[in-house]
This record gives sequence, structure tokens and C-alpha cells, in this order.
Amino acid sequence: MNNVRTFITTVFFLIATGLACAQQLTWTEVAPGVWKAVIGKPEAFDLFKAAAVQPNIQAISAITKSDFPFSKDLAVGTIQDRQTYLRLPLEREEQLFGFGLNFKTVHQRGRIMQLHVDHYGGKDDGRTHAPVPFYVSSRGYGVFVNSARYIKVWAGSGVRRDSPNAPEPRDRNTDKSWTARPYSDAVEILVPAEGVEVFVFAGPTALDAVRRYNLYNGGGCLPPRWGLGFSHRVPKMFDAAQTLTEAKEFSAHGFPLDVIGLEPGWQSKSYPCTFAWDRTRFPDPAKFVQQLKEINVQVNLWTNPYVSKESPLYKELLPLTGSHTVWGGAVPDITMPQTVKPMVDFFKQEHVNIGVSGYKVDETDGYDHYLWPDVATFPSGLSAEQVRQTYGMLWQKITTQIYRDNNVRTYGLTRASNGGAASLPYVIYNDYYSHEDFITALCNSGFTGTLWTPEVRSSKTAEEWLRRWQSVCFSPMAMLNAWASGTKPWSFPEVEKQVKEIALLRMQLLPYFYTSFARYHFDGIPPFRAMNLEEGFSASAIMEMKTASLNDNPYAEAVLKEIKDQYMAGDFLLVAPMFTGQTSRTVILPKGKWYDFYTGEYAGDGTVITVTPGLDKIPVYVKDGGIIPMAEPGLRAPGKNEKFNLEIRHYGAKPATYKLYDDDGVTFDYEKGAFAWREIKVEQQKNGQWKGTLSKPEKGKPDNVGKVTWRFMSAASTPK
Amino acid sequence: MNNVRTFITTVFFLIATGLACAQQLTWTEVAPGVWKAVIGKPEAFDLFKAAAVQPNIQAISAITKSDFPFSKDLAVGTIQDRQTYLRLPLEREEQLFGFGLNFKTVHQRGRIMQLHVDHYGGKDDGRTHAPVPFYVSSRGYGVFVNSARYIKVWAGSGVRRDSPNAPEPRDRNTDKSWTARPYSDAVEILVPAEGVEVFVFAGPTALDAVRRYNLYNGGGCLPPRWGLGFSHRVPKMFDAAQTLTEAKEFSAHGFPLDVIGLEPGWQSKSYPCTFAWDRTRFPDPAKFVQQLKEINVQVNLWTNPYVSKESPLYKELLPLTGSHTVWGGAVPDITMPQTVKPMVDFFKQEHVNIGVSGYKVDETDGYDHYLWPDVATFPSGLSAEQVRQTYGMLWQKITTQIYRDNNVRTYGLTRASNGGAASLPYVIYNDYYSHEDFITALCNSGFTGTLWTPEVRSSKTAEEWLRRWQSVCFSPMAMLNAWASGTKPWSFPEVEKQVKEIALLRMQLLPYFYTSFARYHFDGIPPFRAMNLEEGFSASAIMEMKTASLNDNPYAEAVLKEIKDQYMAGDFLLVAPMFTGQTSRTVILPKGKWYDFYTGEYAGDGTVITVTPGLDKIPVYVKDGGIIPMAEPGLRAPGKNEKFNLEIRHYGAKPATYKLYDDDGVTFDYEKGAFAWREIKVEQQKNGQWKGTLSKPEKGKPDNVGKVTWRFMSAASTPK
Repeated sequence: MNNVRTFITTVFFLIATGLACAQQLTWTEVAPGVWKAVIGKPEAFDLFKAAAVQPNIQAISAITKSDFPFSKDLAVGTIQDRQTYLRLPLEREEQLFGFGLNFKTVHQRGRIMQLHVDHYGGKDDGRTHAPVPFYVSSRGYGVFVNSARYIKVWAGSGVRRDSPNAPEPRDRNTDKSWTARPYSDAVEILVPAEGVEVFVFAGPTALDAVRRYNLYNGGGCLPPRWGLGFSHRVPKMFDAAQTLTEAKEFSAHGFPLDVIGLEPGWQSKSYPCTFAWDRTRFPDPAKFVQQLKEINVQVNLWTNPYVSKESPLYKELLPLTGSHTVWGGAVPDITMPQTVKPMVDFFKQEHVNIGVSGYKVDETDGYDHYLWPDVATFPSGLSAEQVRQTYGMLWQKITTQIYRDNNVRTYGLTRASNGGAASLPYVIYNDYYSHEDFITALCNSGFTGTLWTPEVRSSKTAEEWLRRWQSVCFSPMAMLNAWASGTKPWSFPEVEKQVKEIALLRMQLLPYFYTSFARYHFDGIPPFRAMNLEEGFSASAIMEMKTASLNDNPYAEAVLKEIKDQYMAGDFLLVAPMFTGQTSRTVILPKGKWYDFYTGEYAGDGTVITVTPGLDKIPVYVKDGGIIPMAEPGLRAPGKNEKFNLEIRHYGAKPATYKLYDDDGVTFDYEKGAFAWREIKVEQQKNGQWKGTLSKPEKGKPDNVGKVTWRFMSAASTPK
Repeated sequence: MNNVRTFITTVFFLIATGLACAQQLTWTEVAPGVWKAVIGKPEAFDLFKAAAVQPNIQAISAITKSDFPFSKDLAVGTIQDRQTYLRLPLEREEQLFGFGLNFKTVHQRGRIMQLHVDHYGGKDDGRTHAPVPFYVSSRGYGVFVNSARYIKVWAGSGVRRDSPNAPEPRDRNTDKSWTARPYSDAVEILVPAEGVEVFVFAGPTALDAVRRYNLYNGGGCLPPRWGLGFSHRVPKMFDAAQTLTEAKEFSAHGFPLDVIGLEPGWQSKSYPCTFAWDRTRFPDPAKFVQQLKEINVQVNLWTNPYVSKESPLYKELLPLTGSHTVWGGAVPDITMPQTVKPMVDFFKQEHVNIGVSGYKVDETDGYDHYLWPDVATFPSGLSAEQVRQTYGMLWQKITTQIYRDNNVRTYGLTRASNGGAASLPYVIYNDYYSHEDFITALCNSGFTGTLWTPEVRSSKTAEEWLRRWQSVCFSPMAMLNAWASGTKPWSFPEVEKQVKEIALLRMQLLPYFYTSFARYHFDGIPPFRAMNLEEGFSASAIMEMKTASLNDNPYAEAVLKEIKDQYMAGDFLLVAPMFTGQTSRTVILPKGKWYDFYTGEYAGDGTVITVTPGLDKIPVYVKDGGIIPMAEPGLRAPGKNEKFNLEIRHYGAKPATYKLYDDDGVTFDYEKGAFAWREIKVEQQKNGQWKGTLSKPEKGKPDNVGKVTWRFMSAASTPK
């Protein structure tokens, strides 16, 4: 009898365990080191389709070969409760990164998120401007879930009863090692759809996995040269004359300027928008844009996508818009070509063809209180959720295409993005304003195929002002956004000199940054990224207990101390921003020798150093053998095929080579081969002197380098 | 040609507008003033089924008749994207309350929530211990969505393009009255299921709508008399001897005590739990419980539902548990009777039958980091989401049934509840500890068919300690929870006298509170509730702008100032707690005369008064004609059919009647008619003297009132 009961119980048990019976995913290699699994019936609309990704298979093939990164029987899935449940394995010491543009955390293992396009609300809970469903493992692989749904993630928190790694329960009554978060051996994911595609990107290193992901997206974007110069956004109601005056003030003050951004007031109505110039403030837009072009300043136009009844586009778009309005503006369903066409035609005619260089597309992210609710409907039949998850990305794609049609590059600003968007030349920004968290976002952008600018707006003190300037100059877009504050770079006279210095340093670094972006495009290496992607870096796993009082938090747990206040810029620079109130800080130098950027002096090797740089400097370190090609401190980026002189710096004790990238700087011709990689070689001669050489470009390839001077920064420095 | 195009556009438009074509809901009256609509195919498992609600149709019929509260063509729904989209109308000045146990806000119009059982995370975003999908309108009706899913709500934020009330867009460039939140005329709801039942509860007043809802739930719970006395929870590892000593210390110090709660240490293992007594700390549980009964103290047992491998129940339950564990404990799928039976048998035998009075069922809410993820599966086939939404409520139902089987009432603590649970004798508590927010929760509990205790745990100062005591004594459960702090009522000697005074006042108020709970049960009136349910109260609609800087928040909006720091207790008492640091506060007195509870003096009529009560007192006001039946300040509640003496107080200038409730105080016999409503009548005689009379109970009905004395509190007070 007892046996019968046991038998019945066992059978019931086996039937009952649900996900335990989930199917192993079946993987197909879709590119070298990139595998895809399909479970259920994936939806017709997904992130990769929305972004129209065109994988760069050739570049992916060039990455070191790597096997499938984990045991295939540990990746399982099932369709249950009309949704897709996924499970992927975790090993004991594995760390996870990514899961979108987070602002407060870099280490994501153990966290629970719902990946949901939204403004940033102060918590890393998955709601962010770019909630990219891609994670990177410290074990050297990445996983992408190709769904335009609100995906829920348990990144190593759930413990399954039938897991072979389930920890032994502890008795909290008596066992001091009881933990509120027992060991979990899996990432669990819920996709609210009856099927999905999952991609695995192999390493061997975590950076290689990121590279494969970016290259599968078509490679990272390559901005025009001017995009890496300095951007300034004028106050919201500025007219043409005011804007021209402001632009001229920059050179009068000796400050660089490449892009002037116009804020809401350029449109005849906005919030909702007409997309048409206000003819009282801008009587002759073409002339205005031309006047700025003559002083080498590009014009960028703010807009949001919500269509005013007074827009020339309104009538035609109305039937192609969603059920709900945003600030009274119709929401064009840009998942449909018939909606996109009239908008593109109008934008081309009114903006692009008169020389406008790009857009700042605002408010595509949320916040829920102004965006359409999830019960909104769209004429395409796509759900409000799917439209929301992709809206910012679709805007990037559509506007980029206008420029591509004209064979002119653009570089703009977006407030929302998602998986698949690495190749789109847009930088994310937001309304939040924590300098520290802005730097953490910069770290995380490198895991997500996105770019992020810690834009400067205003500051309470000259110190804060300068500290923000110092870090924005080491970011994908060096920008002052004065739309609401009316600040100018010289707004704090007591630090005007230092602000100018850092802005000009940014201009000097243009060749280095431009090459870094070329590496993003051709090799998939994010130009700005967390230390965790750097060889030789291992965050010491220091567990910190924040509170121990049962009364305050009965489930308090130690958390891993993470390094989120320093990052890599390009191949060689380690940037460690200073924040208001700091006079010194610690910097973690990965293994390998590192040198002070300013002096070339040896700084350390695999150590934690404490630095006291003074107010004038942001601590920056260069990897041994680092080669930094620098331009002269000009007030603007070089134009199309414009020659520029170089000062090539070498740091450290190692002979080195470096590939310097060059192209015309403004068109898409580089996609057809019109580019050059020129070798810089630095060697120590027998007499101990250092010597550098720069190879010539191949015949017929761009050649914009003028005079070259060499600086061997560490020649006097003797590493211990 | 143009006409053809317009025609085609129009047709497309009509096809495209989605929810605009949604169907009008069809309403069936299921009880007087209660209508149900069914859309799509509702799921087999819902909140009302989980709670097993048995509507009290007779009591509902006694409420003033009321018509369907809004135009039926404005309530529409559709099934789209495999989900249910609902829309219900809002009028211009309408206010909304409810949507679960919120902690920071009372007014809910304009808010966006996902109703999700969870711990309280510091934001009123729908994630709370009791995210009841019920809202109450200031226009005098309520709406309930009967789904055990994570329901999303846009409570008047979405603006539909085709709405007849859509506001005209404004130009933010030039129009100072531009608003980030244009006027919205609907509550929109997304239920992630392909169908749902919706209920409308008519008024005429908002309180009547709440009453109908509570009575549809079977009426509010009626605790045993001792449940309204004082509860104390001992530190977590206390043994039998320590607990007995602690219980005796209460009377030694002259403090009342009705319930001792045992925390984790009573179980042989816990977190996960064995549900079995620890025989080293409690060698003879039956004797221990008996010893406490002898000094009139009830025992309440803490537990959480997660089953330890060392529990006698483990083997039998294992196949009936979910895929994931909580702290290594198996999660019994108590949606199935075969899971419930062995647990109930064990609990009955080990706890209830030896005299344990009730349970504190912990950690049924979340936090996500310890609870099962949404990808967990359960043997019943219900989803993790459905189990989570109902788990706390199911525990209440199951444990209540054990007591019902024994014809003994219980009164316990729960950390999760949901719609349909009003009749279950459980009070919600949590780990959060903001005194102010605890009072807001008390206000909101009245909108949601739940009870809430602002339990006292510890305090930084004697002032805070006393202020917390003062308000917990005016709540559904007067409790000190010393599980982690080890505090005792006399822990702050400098206010020991005042703490004792308020605890004894609580004991004096037992007859009043007991009658208030009888009103909850028989008439559906919440014993503790927000001012917004009080006749004569209208929160002046003061709009407050918190910040106006574009830089700080580009979408800042004025918000309605809400009254969330005072509440009604029973029919007559208005309680206005003082918080740490306050020496005075304002109190809003609704229309009608109000009198000071302590002195009987006239306080005001429809005015805002400022009071400076000193540290010793919590401001309490009595409505004109208020009758407060008070007991002697005993150290325990009366036992079964135990006689008690009454001091009946009358306040104000109005002659008055009051129905005093009486029954045996401990059994369910009141459900079979064994109760009495006795009329108290107070009149002014010709000589100006006041006189009171108490009617006799009907023959055969309970008669526990002993000696009666009368106090006419306002006899000397002359209202202006």
C-alpha cells in the first residue's frame, strides 16, 4: 500500500514539476561564435527586425574562435501560461553585466528586473532608456533575448527545488550563516509571448562577446568627425539671431564648438510638435543653417514625435496614429512604412536638405504619466507594449536613413533605445542629473550596444561645473545642454580657464576618439566601457553589509562592492572622474603597467592607488604601450577631407603599434572601402631613444594627416 | 480624387482606432446595487473564488437603493494582444480612492499602478501587501476587477484621440498653462488574461459603495473580544519560561495583555519551517498554552508557509509544492484541497486543539528576492502570478476554517491579502516603519476591505515611542512587536505612565471598538477609514506645486493636497495622531459639530483647527451626538459571556441613539443569531439635564453588560 502511494506520489511529482520538464533549447550557429535558439512561435515583430540589423559576419569571423560557452542541456525553455519561460545556467563565481542602461549598478547577478523602456526612475529595476535584453558573463559570453516585450529577468535569484545545485536550507533560529538569498544557479526569464528567439554570443573573453553582439548589430556607429567635437544646446526660445550670436561667442571666448542644438522654440508649436520652423523666430531657416555652416557649426534640431494638429503632416498622419495622444499630439505608428514616408519626406525637405545635421528625439521613452498607456492601440495592430519598446529605436533608424539617402553622416541624441541599435548614430541622454550615476551609465553603455552622454546642464558650484565638464569631455558626446538653464561654458568665471582647457583637450583627442569609434564600427569594441571588459581587471569581490539590524531590514544581505566610477575610453585610456566634494579618490589599475596621461609618469600595476589631482585635472591613465594620436587644440573638428596635424604620444616602456583610422569624416563612403588604417609604430632604438613611424595610406585611400610630431611621454619614467 | 482619398483615409481611420471600437460592457444586477459584467472568457481562478466570498445579500438590500452610477455606454472593453483592455468613465471633479493598501497617498486619480502582491517598497506603485483591484469614487460608487493577475491601472492619465472630452493641445512654447498631464476622462485597466469579470457597487455615497463591497465579501470580520485587547510579540528565541515570565510582567507593571505572540524560535526549525514545536524551548506546548490561558492570555504563533525538509509534513507535501523553494523551503500549492488537508490536520492537532488562538502568517507577500519567480510552476497548473496574488489570502481562508470547524473565533496577522478578503479575521502588518505612512495605510485600509496595524516595534526616542503607542491603540490591533527589538511597554521609563494610560484607554474603548467591528460585519462599515468616507468631509482641493524648475523636473505638475494623517475610528471618533517632532498640528473637522474626546468641549464645525495637545494626548474628537460605550480600564478583555460594567459617554448637544452590540465574544454563534443589538438612548430632559437609557436584550440573547454609569461629556459646553 505504502509502495503504491509512493509510486503515485512520484508520478504526480514528475507531472507536477513544470519547468523541470522544460525542453532543452536547440542551437544553430548563425555566425561564427553566435548561436540562435527558437522556442515556441516567436512573434513577427522583434528587436532585431525593428532595428533592421545586418550582421557583419566577416568581422565576427575575425574574432578568436570560441565554443558554445555552457552545457547545452542547462539552457531550457517552455511555453506556459501563454508565456515563454527560459532558464540559462550560472556557475558559482560567475558575474553578470548588462541588462540595459543601468545607472547605479554594474554587477547584475542576483538582481530582478522588468526590462521596460522608460525614463530612469532612480532604481535599477529594468525600467530605463535602453533596457536591452542582453547580458554579458564574466565567463566570456553574452545572451540576447530577441523580444520587443516587457521581459522579466531573475538574474540568479530563484532556487529550484529540483536543482542539483540547490543549497541546503539553513535554520535561521540557530544558524548564523542563514541567508535571505540562498545560492541560485540560473538566470530565469519570462517573455510575455508564446515564443522567442534567443542568441548566445561566445567569447572567449567578455569583451569578445560584446564585440560579437555589436558586430551582429552591424557594428557600432561611426559618427562624423564633427560629432565628436563640442555640442552646445541653446535655451528653448532662442531665435535665429540669438543662436548665431551665441555660436559666435564661443570662438570669441576661445571655446570650441561644432554643433548648436535648437530646443523646442524652433518649431511653430511644440509639445505637440509641428516639425515646422517658427517663421517669426526663424524667418529664413535655410539661410540660418547656412550662416552657421559658414562658421563650421552644425545645427541639430530637438523634437519629440507627437504630432500637433497644426503640423502640415497632421491630416495625412492622423489615420496612421495610435488611439492615445501625448500632450494632445497624435502618436504616429512608425512601425508602418506608410506612416514613415510622409514624415521622412517632410523632414528631408524642411530640415535635412537645408543642412540640418541631425536630431535630438525627445520623450520616446516615457514616463508613464505622459506616454500612451499599455491599453493604447495602433493601426499596425502591434501592441502598445511593442511600440513602446521600439519607438526610440525606430526613430533612430528612420532618421538615420534620411541621412544615409543623402550620403551624409549624422550624430544625434535619443532618449530611448533597445537591443539591435548599436549601429545607429545616436547618444542617449536623460533628465536625471546625478554625476556619479551618469558615470555608472557610461560604464554600462559598453555592455548594451549604446552610447551615453553625461551632459552638463547647470551646477550649484564652480567645482561641480568643472567636474562635470571633465567627465563629459571623456564621453561619446561632449555637450553643454543649456535648454533650461541658459548656461554657457564660461558661466563660472572662477573655472573658465580649466573648462576651456578640458574642452580643448577633448578637441585634441579627436583623432584618438575617432579611431576608437572606428574600432566600434569595424571591430565591435565599445569606445566607452566598464572596467570589467578590460583585460587584467578583476574587481576584488569585497562583500559589503550595508545594515545589520533586524528591525531595519530583516532580510539584509551583503552585496558585492562594484567598481562603477572609472571606465575605459578607447583602447588605452582609463578615466577616473572626480565628483563634487572629492579631493582625492582611489583608482583601480588593472594588471599591466599604467602611466599618468598628463605627465607620462608610471602610476602602478594591478594596484589600487589614491590620487589627489587637484581641481584642474581629471585623473586619466594610459596603458603601457599606449599610443594616443592627438590633434592641435582647435575650435572645431576637421571638415570633409580636411588635413590636420598630429601629435602622437607614446606612453610606457613597451614598444607599440597602433592602427590610426582615417576617412573623409562625413560621408558613408567608408562603407564602400573609402577608409585607411595607418600603422603607427613606436620602438626604442639602440641608443635608448624612442622613435615613431606612421605608415602611408594605401593608394587612393583618404590621407588627412598633415604634420606629425612625436612625444614619448614616459621616456623619463622608470617603472619600479 | 481628393474625396476618394479622404474616404479611404476615413475608413482606415475607423478600422484603426482599436479600443474606440471596443464593446460596451453588459451589466447584470447580482445583488441590489451590485452589477457584474463579463468580458471575454474569465479565468477559472479569480479573487472572489480564491476568497470563497459568500455575499450577504440581505444586508446589501438594506442599503439605500441606488441606480447604476454612470452612463453604461462609457464602460467598454475589448480583448486585444491576448489581454483584456477595460475603460471606465471619470467625470471632471471626480476623486478616486482605494486600489489597494497604499502608504503615501489617498487620492488615486491620475496615478498609474500595477496591482501586484509585494512587500511595500516605498512607492505607491501598486506593489503592496493588499493590491486590491477595487476603487471607490467620490461620486459614490466602487468598481472591482475580479482577477488574480497583475492588473495594470491608468487611473485617469491616458488621453484618447477620439475622446469627446480630449483637451485642446497647448503650445508649450508660448502657453504658460501648458500641462505635462492633460485632462483624462477614464480609468483604463489592462488585465493580462483573455477575459474578466468586473463589478460595480453603487452608493449613493462612497461609504455605501464600500459597504456593498464589504457585504458582497460576506461582511467584514468580527474578531473575538480578546483580539481587540493588547497584543505583545516576544523576541524570536524566547522559550516557554521566558514567555510566561514576560506575560506575567505585564500585569505586574499594570499593563494590559490579551495575546502573546511567539516568533520564529517556537518552531524546531524555521525559515524554512517545520510547523512543529521546538521541544527544547517548549517541552510541553499544551501545558504552556494552558498556563497562559489561566492568566487569560492567548497564544498566537508566527509562521511562514515554506516547508522545511525536517517538517513532519514534508514528504507528503513535496509533490504538492511549486518548482521553486523559498529559503530552501518547499512552497505548498494551497490552491489544491489535497495540499490543504494534511496541513490543516497537522495545524489543528499541533496548535489549534491545544488552545493556540491564531497565527501570524509571514512572508506571503514577497519581496521578489526571496519569493518564487513568475516562472515558477505549481502542480495545480495555476501560474506563479495567480498563486502570488492569492497566497496570503488563501492562508487566511484556510486557517480561519480550522477555527470555524472548532466554533472558536481567531484573529491573526497576515502580510498579504487581496480582493474578497474582508470577512477573514486578519490584520495586515509589514517591515516598513514610517509612522506617518502607517497612518495613511490605516486610512486606505477602509477602502480595500482590509485591516492594518501600525504596530510599535522600537523607537529612537521616548517621544516617538509614545506617539506610536497612541496611534496603535486606535487601530484594529493594538500591538507591540518586540521580535527583534526586545522592547517592553515600559522600555521608556520617562513615558511609562503615558503609555500605560493609552493602553488602558484602549481597553476602556473595547465595547466601542467591538460594536464598530460588528458594524463592519453586519453593515459593511469599515471600523477604521479615511476622512473621505465621512459625511460632511470635503478635502479642500488645494493644488500644490512641489518644484517649478525645468532643470529639476521638466514635467513637474501640481498635485492635490490630501488629508492622510487623520481618520475615523468607528461611527463617532475622529483620530488625529501626532508624529515625532510635532508639538501642534491642524485637524480638519468635517461639517457638523465636533467635541474634544477627553473634555467634551466643543471643538469646531467644518473648520480647520490647530491643536497643541501636549505629549500625553493623541487628539481625538467626537461627532455631535456621539455615544461611546466604555468599559473599565481592565488588564484583559472580557472572556466568553463574561459580564462587564459600562461607562456610557455622550458628547455634544444632540440627543442620540446608538446600537450597542453584544454576543458571547468568542464563538461563531453570532452567525446563527446569538447576538444582541441594544439601544442606547440619550435625551435632554425638560430641566436641561441629560438622561440615558439602555434597552434590554431580547429574551435568550447575550446579556453581558453589568453596571452602567452615564457621563454627559458636553453638558457644560456651549457651542458657539
